[in-house]
Amino acid sequence: MSQFMNSKDDMVTEAIDGAIATSGGALSRLDGYPHIRVVVRSDWDKSKVALVSGGGSGHEPAHVGFVGKGMLTAAVCGDIFASPSVDAVLAAILAVTGPSGCLLIVKNYTGDRLNFGLAAERARSFGHKVSMVVVDDDIALPDLPQARGVAGTLFVHKIAGALAETGADLDTVTDRAKRVISSISSIGMSLDTCTVPGSPKEFRIPEKMAELGLGIHGEAGVEQIDFVDANQAMTAVVDKLAAGMTEAEHVVLLNNLGGASVLEMSVLAHELVNSRVGDRLKLIIGPAAMMTSLDMRGFSVSVHELGEGDSVLLSAATSAPGWPGCLAIGSVDVLPLPDGLTPIKAMPSPHEATRSFLTECCKVLISAEDDLNALDAKSGDGDTGSTLATAARALIKAMDRLPLADHTQLYRAIGLELSQTMGGSSGVLLAIFFAAAGDASSSGMPMRDALQIGLERMQQIGGAKPGDRTMIDALAPALEALKAGFPAAAKAARAGANHTATLSKANAGRASYINPEQLSGHVDPGAEAVARLFEHLAG
Amino acid sequence: MSQFMNSKDDMVTEAIDGAIATSGGALSRLDGYPHIRVVVRSDWDKSKVALVSGGGSGHEPAHVGFVGKGMLTAAVCGDIFASPSVDAVLAAILAVTGPSGCLLIVKNYTGDRLNFGLAAERARSFGHKVSMVVVDDDIALPDLPQARGVAGTLFVHKIAGALAETGADLDTVTDRAKRVISSISSIGMSLDTCTVPGSPKEFRIPEKMAELGLGIHGEAGVEQIDFVDANQAMTAVVDKLAAGMTEAEHVVLLNNLGGASVLEMSVLAHELVNSRVGDRLKLIIGPAAMMTSLDMRGFSVSVHELGEGDSVLLSAATSAPGWPGCLAIGSVDVLPLPDGLTPIKAMPSPHEATRSFLTECCKVLISAEDDLNALDAKSGDGDTGSTLATAARALIKAMDRLPLADHTQLYRAIGLELSQTMGGSSGVLLAIFFAAAGDASSSGMPMRDALQIGLERMQQIGGAKPGDRTMIDALAPALEALKAGFPAAAKAARAGANHTATLSKANAGRASYINPEQLSGHVDPGAEAVARLFEHLAG
Repeated sequence: MSQFMNSKDDMVTEAIDGAIATSGGALSRLDGYPHIRVVVRSDWDKSKVALVSGGGSGHEPAHVGFVGKGMLTAAVCGDIFASPSVDAVLAAILAVTGPSGCLLIVKNYTGDRLNFGLAAERARSFGHKVSMVVVDDDIALPDLPQARGVAGTLFVHKIAGALAETGADLDTVTDRAKRVISSISSIGMSLDTCTVPGSPKEFRIPEKMAELGLGIHGEAGVEQIDFVDANQAMTAVVDKLAAGMTEAEHVVLLNNLGGASVLEMSVLAHELVNSRVGDRLKLIIGPAAMMTSLDMRGFSVSVHELGEGDSVLLSAATSAPGWPGCLAIGSVDVLPLPDGLTPIKAMPSPHEATRSFLTECCKVLISAEDDLNALDAKSGDGDTGSTLATAARALIKAMDRLPLADHTQLYRAIGLELSQTMGGSSGVLLAIFFAAAGDASSSGMPMRDALQIGLERMQQIGGAKPGDRTMIDALAPALEALKAGFPAAAKAARAGANHTATLSKANAGRASYINPEQLSGHVDPGAEAVARLFEHLAG
Repeated sequence: MSQFMNSKDDMVTEAIDGAIATSGGALSRLDGYPHIRVVVRSDWDKSKVALVSGGGSGHEPAHVGFVGKGMLTAAVCGDIFASPSVDAVLAAILAVTGPSGCLLIVKNYTGDRLNFGLAAERARSFGHKVSMVVVDDDIALPDLPQARGVAGTLFVHKIAGALAETGADLDTVTDRAKRVISSISSIGMSLDTCTVPGSPKEFRIPEKMAELGLGIHGEAGVEQIDFVDANQAMTAVVDKLAAGMTEAEHVVLLNNLGGASVLEMSVLAHELVNSRVGDRLKLIIGPAAMMTSLDMRGFSVSVHELGEGDSVLLSAATSAPGWPGCLAIGSVDVLPLPDGLTPIKAMPSPHEATRSFLTECCKVLISAEDDLNALDAKSGDGDTGSTLATAARALIKAMDRLPLADHTQLYRAIGLELSQTMGGSSGVLLAIFFAAAGDASSSGMPMRDALQIGLERMQQIGGAKPGDRTMIDALAPALEALKAGFPAAAKAARAGANHTATLSKANAGRASYINPEQLSGHVDPGAEAVARLFEHLAG
C-alpha cells in the first residue's frame, strides 16, 4: 500500500513541521533535527509545572497534538514506534523546566521508561525538580504485571495539564497523575493491521475476524475473535472493561486507532453509550483519533472513574489542537416533526373550460408518445414519450380532485400530481416549475409572468440554460413570445425545438453524457413536447 | 473488508444517534426515523437566519458535525451517498425557519438540487423566506459546466454561518454565500477506493498509482497517475489549483478523505505549506477529516480567495463539533537547544584507595564472565557475563578520568561511563542507579542510604521488584543488611541470589518471556554478579 510520505527517514520531521506550521503559532520546536524532535508550547514562560510526554511516533495526534495551554508543555518524538533518545528527552526537560519543576508522563514501554528515566536523572543533576509517572492502562494482558500504556494516557495529560495550569505545585500534580493512572483501564480492537512506513503490510487478521487486546505498535492482539457486527465488537470490549469498573461515575475515551471511518466511529459511540456500562459513563472524549496506531482500522475504549474535581479539569479549556473536548453524554433529544409535511390538498372545484383545456393538453402529450420515444432513443433510453404520456393519463384521471376553478391553487396542485406520478428528475423539475408559478400567481402576478418565474426557478434548480439541449430551449422563447399571443409563442417554441437539432453538445441532463455526433440532427424530445403543446394551444 | 456497523439499513441512524449522544447536549433530532434524519441545534430559537445543509451520508463529520452555533442550524442526512428526500429537507426547513428565513446550502449533485429545490418551493408556500445556493467547487472536470460540490462547501457553511450568527438578514447571508462559492476551488487525490457498506470493495487503483480529481462518492477520478511520494502528490494537486488562483491571499482547507493516517496528513500539510502557492496561503482549516468519502485513503485541498471580512468569520468561534478551527499558517519557529545536553564531566582526581577498590570490583566481574554467561544461557542469550566484563574492563581503562577523590561526583561519573559502554537496558538502569545515588549523596546522605535511593529509582524506572528474578533479588537484601557490615550484606546477597533459582516465573526483563520450566533451578545471572561482588567486598 502506497502512503503519503517522501521517505521513511524524513517522515516524522516533516510531519512535525507540518503540524507546527498549521498550529497558528501555538507550537515551536527545538533546533535538534533529525535526532532531537521536541515540540514545545510557543507561549511557555516556565512559571508553572511543566508537563513533558512523548514516545515513538506513529500515534498522531499524540503527542504533538496535545501540546498546548492546559495540557502538555512539550512532546518528545521518537522514530515510528521507537522511543526517543535520552538526549531528546533531556533537551525537552531542560527547555521547559523552571523553578516549579517538571512532570514526565511516560507510557509503560521499556524503552520509554529507561530513556525518560535516565533523562530525569540527568536533569536532576542540574538541580531541576523532575518527577515521573508511568501509565499502564492496558488490560489486554491481565496476567502480565507490566501492562502497556495506551490511549488512557490522554486522561493523565488532560487532568494533570489542567491542574498544572492552575498553578498547582509539582507534588500535587504528580500525586494527581498517579491517582488518575491507578484508575484507568483501556482495551482496543481492530479489523486489520496497520501499515508501517517502509515495511510490507502484514495480513494477519483474516476477513470476518477481529483482534481484541491490541497495543499501539502493530503487535498482535491477545486473541482473535469472530467479528459479527459493531454491537458484538463493542460488547466484547465493554465486557473486558466492566470487570474492573466500580459502580461510580466514569469518563470514557473512544479512540480511533487511525483507519476506522468517522461514520463507523459514530456507530461505535452509539453502541458504547447503549452498552451495559452506559449508565455509568457521564463524560466522553471523542470519538476521535487521539492515540493512533498509524492507519489501523480499529478503536480503543478507555475508562477512568471520576475523582473529585476531575470533571472540571477534563472540561477545562485547552489550546492543544488534538484535543476533541470532553462532553457530557446525554440522551438523544427527539423533537416532534413540524406540521406541514403532508401537502395540503386544495379543495376540488369544477370549471368546465379549464378541465377541457387541461385534458386537451394531456391528449397532445399522449398522442405524441411514440414520436417522443423515438427522438429520445437517439440521446437517452427512449422513454421520454412514455413518461410524459403516463403523467398525462394520470392527470386526466386526477381531474375531479383538482381545484379547477382556482387557478392560483391549480398550478401547485398540478405540480404535486406530477411530482407523485412522473418520478425522476423531470417530475421534480415540473413540480418546481408549477409550484413556483403558483406561488407567483398567488401574489397577483399575471399568468405569463408567473410562468416565467417558474421557468427561472426550474433553471436555477435544474441547472440548464437555453442552448443546453433541453425542454428549456423551447419553453423559454415560447414564454417570451407569449406576450404577443399563442400563435407567436407556438412559432417561437417550434423554432427553439428545431434549433436543438443543431446543438451538438448537451450540457445538462442525461444527454450530456452522450457522444456529440449521436445527438446532431435530432430534436430534443422535451423541447419537441413543449413545441407540440404550444402548437396545439395556438391551434 | 469487515466494518464497524450492524446493518446497512441502520448505519446512518445509529451513527446520528451516536453523534447526538456524544455532543454534550448541543444536538437534537427530529422524530422522523428512519426516513427523515434531521439533526438540529438544541439551542436554536429561530431569531436569526437559519442555515440548512445536508446530502448523502458517508461524508462524516459532514454534515451533522457542522451543526452548531455559528455554522449550520440543521443537517439533513440521506442514505449513504444518496440524497435525502424532499420531505426530509422540508422537515428541516420547517423545524428551524423563523421570520428571518432560511438559507439552503446544497452541493451540486442533481439529486440534492432537485430535492432541496422542491422542498424550498414547498416551504415558500407556507410563507417562509427560503433561498438556496449551490456549491460547485470541484475543478477536476474543467470542461463540465456542472462541477460537483465537495469539501469547499465547508467555507460556505462557516462564513455564512458566522455571518448569520451576527444577525445579518437573509439577502446579506445569501449574497455572501454566493460570493464565497464563486471563488472556491477544490481537488482531491486518493491511493485507494472507499469501502461502501454492504458492497464488495472495488480494487480500481493499482499499487503505486493514484487517482486525481475524485468526487466524494467513490466515483473514479478524472485520471490515474503514477504515485511517487507526498511531494509529487501535493504538487499535482497544487498545480491544478494554481491555474485558477489569483495572487491575493487565500484560505486553504486540507481535508482527509477518511482513510489517510494523521501522520500522513501532517506530511501533506508540510508539503502544502511549502508548495509553490504556499506564500499565498494565509489561513488553514485542518488537516482533518471534514468531508470524507467513508474510509478513502486520500485527501483534498480547497482554496478560497479571502474577501473582506472573511478572516474574521472563518476564525469566529463555533460550537460545531466537527470544525477543526481556522488558524494562521506560520513559519516553523526553531528554538535553540538548551545547554547541558553534553554531560559535564567532573574533574579527574586521584585517590589510591578508591582506585584500588573499584579496580578489584571490576576484576571480580571480569573473572565471573564465563560463569555468568553460562547462567544467562539458561534464560537469555548468554551474554550477561560478557556485557558486565566489557563494562568492567572499560571502567578500569577510564580510571584516570574519574573524580576518584570526590565520592559524590564519582557515583554519577560511573553511571555515565556505564551508560556509554554497556548499552541496552542494563546500562541505562545502572546509570540511573548511580546517578540517583550520586544525587542523594551530594545532599549529604550516608552511602548506604544513597545507594538505597539509587535502588528505589532503578526499581521505579525498570519496573522490577524483589521476587521478579533480577539483580534486585540480591541487591535489595544486601543493601538492607549493609547496616550490619559487609559480611552480613554478602550473606544476604548470596541468599537472595540463590533464592532466584527457586523462582519459576520471571516478571520483568527478557526472562519474563521464557517458559518457567527452563528457569527453575538456575540462579539469575544479574543476582549472581551482585552476590559475587558483595562476597568479594566482605572477603
